[in-house]
Amino acid sequence: MRVELVQTGTELLTGARLNLHAQWLSERLTSMGYEVVRQTVVADAAGAICEAVAGALGRVRLVVVTGGLGPTSDDRTREEIAQLLGRRLVEDTQVLRRLEAFYAARNRVMPERARVQALVPEGAVVLENRWGTAPGLALEVSPEVRAGLGEGKGPVRAEGTGWLVLLPGPTREMRPMFEERVVPLLAKVLPVEEEWASVVLRTVGLPESVVEARVTAVLEGGGGSGVEVGYCAHAGEVDVRLVARGPGARERVGRAEHRVRLELGQAVYGAGEVTLEAVVLEMLRARAETVAVAESCTGGCVAHRLTNVPGASASFVAGWVTYSNESKVRGLGVTPAALAAHGAVSAEVAKQMAEGARRMAGSTHGLAITGIAGPTGGSAEKPVGTVFLAYAGPGGTEVERRFHPIDRVSFKEVTATYALDLLRRALLRGAGTD
Amino acid sequence: MRVELVQTGTELLTGARLNLHAQWLSERLTSMGYEVVRQTVVADAAGAICEAVAGALGRVRLVVVTGGLGPTSDDRTREEIAQLLGRRLVEDTQVLRRLEAFYAARNRVMPERARVQALVPEGAVVLENRWGTAPGLALEVSPEVRAGLGEGKGPVRAEGTGWLVLLPGPTREMRPMFEERVVPLLAKVLPVEEEWASVVLRTVGLPESVVEARVTAVLEGGGGSGVEVGYCAHAGEVDVRLVARGPGARERVGRAEHRVRLELGQAVYGAGEVTLEAVVLEMLRARAETVAVAESCTGGCVAHRLTNVPGASASFVAGWVTYSNESKVRGLGVTPAALAAHGAVSAEVAKQMAEGARRMAGSTHGLAITGIAGPTGGSAEKPVGTVFLAYAGPGGTEVERRFHPIDRVSFKEVTATYALDLLRRALLRGAGTD
Repeated sequence: MRVELVQTGTELLTGARLNLHAQWLSERLTSMGYEVVRQTVVADAAGAICEAVAGALGRVRLVVVTGGLGPTSDDRTREEIAQLLGRRLVEDTQVLRRLEAFYAARNRVMPERARVQALVPEGAVVLENRWGTAPGLALEVSPEVRAGLGEGKGPVRAEGTGWLVLLPGPTREMRPMFEERVVPLLAKVLPVEEEWASVVLRTVGLPESVVEARVTAVLEGGGGSGVEVGYCAHAGEVDVRLVARGPGARERVGRAEHRVRLELGQAVYGAGEVTLEAVVLEMLRARAETVAVAESCTGGCVAHRLTNVPGASASFVAGWVTYSNESKVRGLGVTPAALAAHGAVSAEVAKQMAEGARRMAGSTHGLAITGIAGPTGGSAEKPVGTVFLAYAGPGGTEVERRFHPIDRVSFKEVTATYALDLLRRALLRGAGTD
Repeated sequence: MRVELVQTGTELLTGARLNLHAQWLSERLTSMGYEVVRQTVVADAAGAICEAVAGALGRVRLVVVTGGLGPTSDDRTREEIAQLLGRRLVEDTQVLRRLEAFYAARNRVMPERARVQALVPEGAVVLENRWGTAPGLALEVSPEVRAGLGEGKGPVRAEGTGWLVLLPGPTREMRPMFEERVVPLLAKVLPVEEEWASVVLRTVGLPESVVEARVTAVLEGGGGSGVEVGYCAHAGEVDVRLVARGPGARERVGRAEHRVRLELGQAVYGAGEVTLEAVVLEMLRARAETVAVAESCTGGCVAHRLTNVPGASASFVAGWVTYSNESKVRGLGVTPAALAAHGAVSAEVAKQMAEGARRMAGSTHGLAITGIAGPTGGSAEKPVGTVFLAYAGPGGTEVERRFHPIDRVSFKEVTATYALDLLRRALLRGAGTD
């Protein structure tokens, strides 16, 4: 079942914003068994959406459009699609009421312009927006209309009814709507009928080329695995995607997953949409243990990632961002002598930070990070990218020295990932109060 | 001068990889005065590149293609483009020599398959690849050929000679090639001749519909401004982009910018690529003042954003993530009585956190955030999304209550933005030492 994505957004075309929707939607649709064959971004200009969507509907049965549903004059998707499909726009009373309630709950008067968001093309399915104003819309498109639209816009493959799904642009509105409204709708109207299976194994701590070499070696022996493998490296992690289609797909993917997990061992921290931080917090929660984190160069990144996970407060109790030598002393009890002898970026200071956090917070475990994020601050013996990670637990403290010579923002993310993994590996070893 | 981008990459279509090229190339081209009107991603499948490039060449004079120039069987760009434009592929001796030297320098034998990278379509300009094997290619395309290619693939606007630029996929090869080879070539063969101007005003604290209404009102009076306006809302901020082309463009944008700044006043915190956190840190640095931040529900997000800015340590000295009542007491001196009487999410506790951070860190200013990020933890009188922001300075402490009923992760970002803005507005009022 082939899919195309169309996004509107002048901010994407000027390069002002990074396009996250394309990857997110493509990953979700791929994991559901669909095949994304094209992604297009067009301007907010009149007619641009029409043109791109018409061409897409002539080629594939599912077209997902994001953007242009808001209340401003740049938002043309509703009008253009209604015009393209020859449907009248009618004000939907239920949508209007929900709009009014949205503004009322925020003690605001609904601007007159915002009312356009209650207009629904005739025959469209309304997709409720729990987190914003504009509802999404889904429209069925007959093969005849598909063929007509696609004419003169490239190759036409118009067998079968098509569906056009319109989603709002803001991420926090679009993603829940997709999960809660679009996924069930597609299961009903455009299900993927051939057998398919897909799993993404999440790994941490190994370089991409090593992961690829080891996975290839273990899967390609003996006539191959009948499974396609893809790799995606990001911030100290490498995701390994295994996909198969057709009869026996699930069995082939199951077997391949088993072989890869055996080969990569502890480097695999989970599968699917999990995050390393959620995995670590769950391990702590299951043991009724807690952690405190002292950060210098990561500047709050570790605490921020941990607290993104609902329920983090069960296991994460306190964090420090000791961004100056003085705050390390006053906040964590790091000794001035250690700072003078070794410097803030040292194994000894990392150790004292981790132990200090654990002591001050009264937590089971302590984690600390001190390093040089750059671009300035490096030296010959401690260049930019140098970092010390420390784990303090009931059984003692361990320190790891690492080197991540990358840009400042990436340094923080990668270092935070390795710090969380240091804690994960300590927990796997049983380093708690058992 | 309109441009389209075409990328090949199955890993982009499965969502395995995030598309960074589109943003990078769009930003570079936009800053050079070009107008990117479409971005397309197609599969590595045979014919897909052809189809997308043909349509693009029928519409615009500059098409930039990335990917598919390597030595593997997935790499089809060279062949498909040669076929599309009816050009023979000829082995270029100089390119072949450079290929052989590349492998020799790495003590490797050049694989036979790698030799295809020395094939050059007749008439193409070779763009040297300093960091990899496959050279880029640039091909001039006459208006007649453009019109022919574009036929049946959408609207055709084929006046003027076109250029097709083919670049390698790997980022570290593509970007230097673009800067060193493509930029000078474009200046020679497809310079932007009309005057153009563009500015993005960064605003915070106003809803998007309000910004649009006020900007529209101030620009559309008196015959209009001759300037196009675009809006992009994200996490409590709204970017206002003003663009004009043609004679007098710079003057029109300058005048429009002036009017918008007057109208929106302090809501405008900067222009262009700045971040709110960088603006706040610069204000502090210029006054030789410092800030400490105590966070509960934002969990380190504020500290993380501040420390993303190089040089943050000049003004940001310490942060706390007091994620439990106990850590608020032990770390910041919040009184158990206040917690008992008002609860952790209250104006009084926010005040004590901000004053405690300021006192403990010895900083000029203190900032604190306490609230309910959700999805659980709310009550009738303090629903999920309730948050108290506090600013503590030499002149006293102020507390703001806000309500952001959105998902947990967005709540943290939006709340962090408003906290930074609370500090910014205090600094604008002159709330420092003097």
